[in-house]
Amino acid sequence: MNPIRLLAVFVAGLVLGAQAFAFDGVVEKKILSLPSYTTLGGKTLKDVKVGYETYGTLNDKKDNVILICHHFSGTSHAAGRYADEEKSSGYWDTIIGSGKAFDTDKYFVVSADILANINKSTFSFTTGPHSLDPDTGMPYGMKFPIVTIRDFVNVQKSLLDQLGIKKLVVVAGPSLGSIQSLEWAAAYSDMVERVIAVITPGLEFDPLAIARIGIWSNPILLDPKWNGGDYYGKEEPSAGLAIALKLAFLNSYHWTWANEKFGHRWVSDGNPRDSWENKFAIEDFLDRVSAAGSTLVDANAFLFVVKAAQVYRVGHALTLQEGVKTIKAKVLLLPAQSDLAAFPIYAMRAAETLRKQGKAVDYAEIKGNGGHMDGLQKINTVDKLIKNFLSK
Amino acid sequence: MNPIRLLAVFVAGLVLGAQAFAFDGVVEKKILSLPSYTTLGGKTLKDVKVGYETYGTLNDKKDNVILICHHFSGTSHAAGRYADEEKSSGYWDTIIGSGKAFDTDKYFVVSADILANINKSTFSFTTGPHSLDPDTGMPYGMKFPIVTIRDFVNVQKSLLDQLGIKKLVVVAGPSLGSIQSLEWAAAYSDMVERVIAVITPGLEFDPLAIARIGIWSNPILLDPKWNGGDYYGKEEPSAGLAIALKLAFLNSYHWTWANEKFGHRWVSDGNPRDSWENKFAIEDFLDRVSAAGSTLVDANAFLFVVKAAQVYRVGHALTLQEGVKTIKAKVLLLPAQSDLAAFPIYAMRAAETLRKQGKAVDYAEIKGNGGHMDGLQKINTVDKLIKNFLSK
Repeated sequence: MNPIRLLAVFVAGLVLGAQAFAFDGVVEKKILSLPSYTTLGGKTLKDVKVGYETYGTLNDKKDNVILICHHFSGTSHAAGRYADEEKSSGYWDTIIGSGKAFDTDKYFVVSADILANINKSTFSFTTGPHSLDPDTGMPYGMKFPIVTIRDFVNVQKSLLDQLGIKKLVVVAGPSLGSIQSLEWAAAYSDMVERVIAVITPGLEFDPLAIARIGIWSNPILLDPKWNGGDYYGKEEPSAGLAIALKLAFLNSYHWTWANEKFGHRWVSDGNPRDSWENKFAIEDFLDRVSAAGSTLVDANAFLFVVKAAQVYRVGHALTLQEGVKTIKAKVLLLPAQSDLAAFPIYAMRAAETLRKQGKAVDYAEIKGNGGHMDGLQKINTVDKLIKNFLSK
Repeated sequence: MNPIRLLAVFVAGLVLGAQAFAFDGVVEKKILSLPSYTTLGGKTLKDVKVGYETYGTLNDKKDNVILICHHFSGTSHAAGRYADEEKSSGYWDTIIGSGKAFDTDKYFVVSADILANINKSTFSFTTGPHSLDPDTGMPYGMKFPIVTIRDFVNVQKSLLDQLGIKKLVVVAGPSLGSIQSLEWAAAYSDMVERVIAVITPGLEFDPLAIARIGIWSNPILLDPKWNGGDYYGKEEPSAGLAIALKLAFLNSYHWTWANEKFGHRWVSDGNPRDSWENKFAIEDFLDRVSAAGSTLVDANAFLFVVKAAQVYRVGHALTLQEGVKTIKAKVLLLPAQSDLAAFPIYAMRAAETLRKQGKAVDYAEIKGNGGHMDGLQKINTVDKLIKNFLSK
């Protein structure tokens, strides 16, 4: 696999070529501008920009809207291609488009970046720790305010306000996107008719998950080049970031993937037991994919998104019971059966908590042995479930 | 929990006080000395020493011997206490002792360190990369030869030779100890009557496990103080090692442990969403336990044991079929039901491979929700199974 494809696999989190059909039209990035945004923590960011994409057409009543929220390593590029010659499509292209589960002949699909999106490809249009603080003219670095899932949602709310949208048929997303979707239902309960939470960590981050994702950040902080977050325009903490990305990447996969794709193969003729230089194919792949990824991802943004994930609890509440109280949306939970990161038990627990408070919950598992990645790669296998849920 | 107890939890991999009964006698460390040992890779180490312990009495026929092999972070301290006032017992104390599954009234139990044992507590008696190379008078560091599971077994074989032991009733061990046990059955098939492989990675390290354990080493290599392994007598790569230990530690636990022990508690009054300094209790625990552990563990040895694990395939063979061929022992596989590291599927696969070649295999799962740790903490719950297997 050549480096460009490796990068694309990492960033999109997709095996290329998995999509039989791309979104019909060529999509373009649009930019939301806000003069300022004040975080839940009370810090005001000036001149906030967030990239977004739309697919399909907003109807006159503005009531045919689907909002898509992206995963940890994703961007607002959920469907389609920027140009015909582009090889990869958006991450949920198999369910967004003409005649698909999120049918763009019928629905207007909006997909927005989160603040502090980790991808450098978003740097020209989405505010994050790399952005220049208008007050100092310098990059925020670690002075960027701590942002939460609710902050991501509030910025998306401003976008919908600008578009004149007051109702959402559904808010949907995989992984980190699923918790934004649930947060939407708690924060703006009169607006959200349905939520589809795919490969979800649940209504709050589980303590084991808090610890596991927390460790991802450790190698960045260990890298001397991180320098307290002050590295823009200097040498970047690529080595620490590469380990962080490797942890994140491996977390998303299942042993079946490792067995089928790599087995016990070595990179060359050298048996790994004979030398420190001799690597297993899976190690070599992870080294290359994470080194490539480290040139495409911002280390500080990575830290901020980890923090946002860890401190998430639906409704931005101090207790779970309080947090779910306001939810009115019908909820569809779609964990992946073989997920070794967002274990199905996390979705089961969410279902239980919601049902106890009288909420409408559907639950189904995405079949497969692709681990967490099945929330992206196998999402098309539950397209009928999704269509059916939208007609409820 | 005070630091000493934290350390003990880490190093022994045991929650203290879990054992109702300690081994009756006070145990002492013994030392095997070999003028030289030549590794499978063809490198000769001079003046090799390995610590070991014995419990019970060798009978006249020398045919009442049980060999115990330790896990990644363990030592040969499998049972008993060094002094009455010592608070913790050996890691499998609940099944080794008078009247227990490995009944010291009947059996002579031998437990030996592996070469390159990661614990500094073994430094005075077990050879590893910290040891002085007699040829140079300097610590080996990364010039220490790559050692494999077969090397660990061969050194143990030399120990048994010195003790005049030609037959083993059973070789048993948890995790890394389980693969030494299986390797024993392949390497010295006429000597080994039975194998008990607890929380086992199986007959070879699974590709996903190869990648997962491989990443543990990354933060050590990233730490500038690691300095190519040349840090003895200088500042040690404690920060990198602490992350490595944190990864290893967390790998052994289950979400139930995280939920029950920590939940979403914060360390102090500070909500983690309000500041980078505010930690969740589970993060604080892991930070403290890994920092404490980093003073007790050798970074280079850690790298060597990771390598040994990764390159393991039973029989030190190039194919699995070849590797299992010589095994004559009856095998009892005891995975832990809730293990998120050595998934039960790994033991199931081992059972399948062995049965296909006509080997005698028993399989049972250790019930519980303690993850990989149940191979230590809940081993007493399968003591009747073990007793029964020994009488087969």
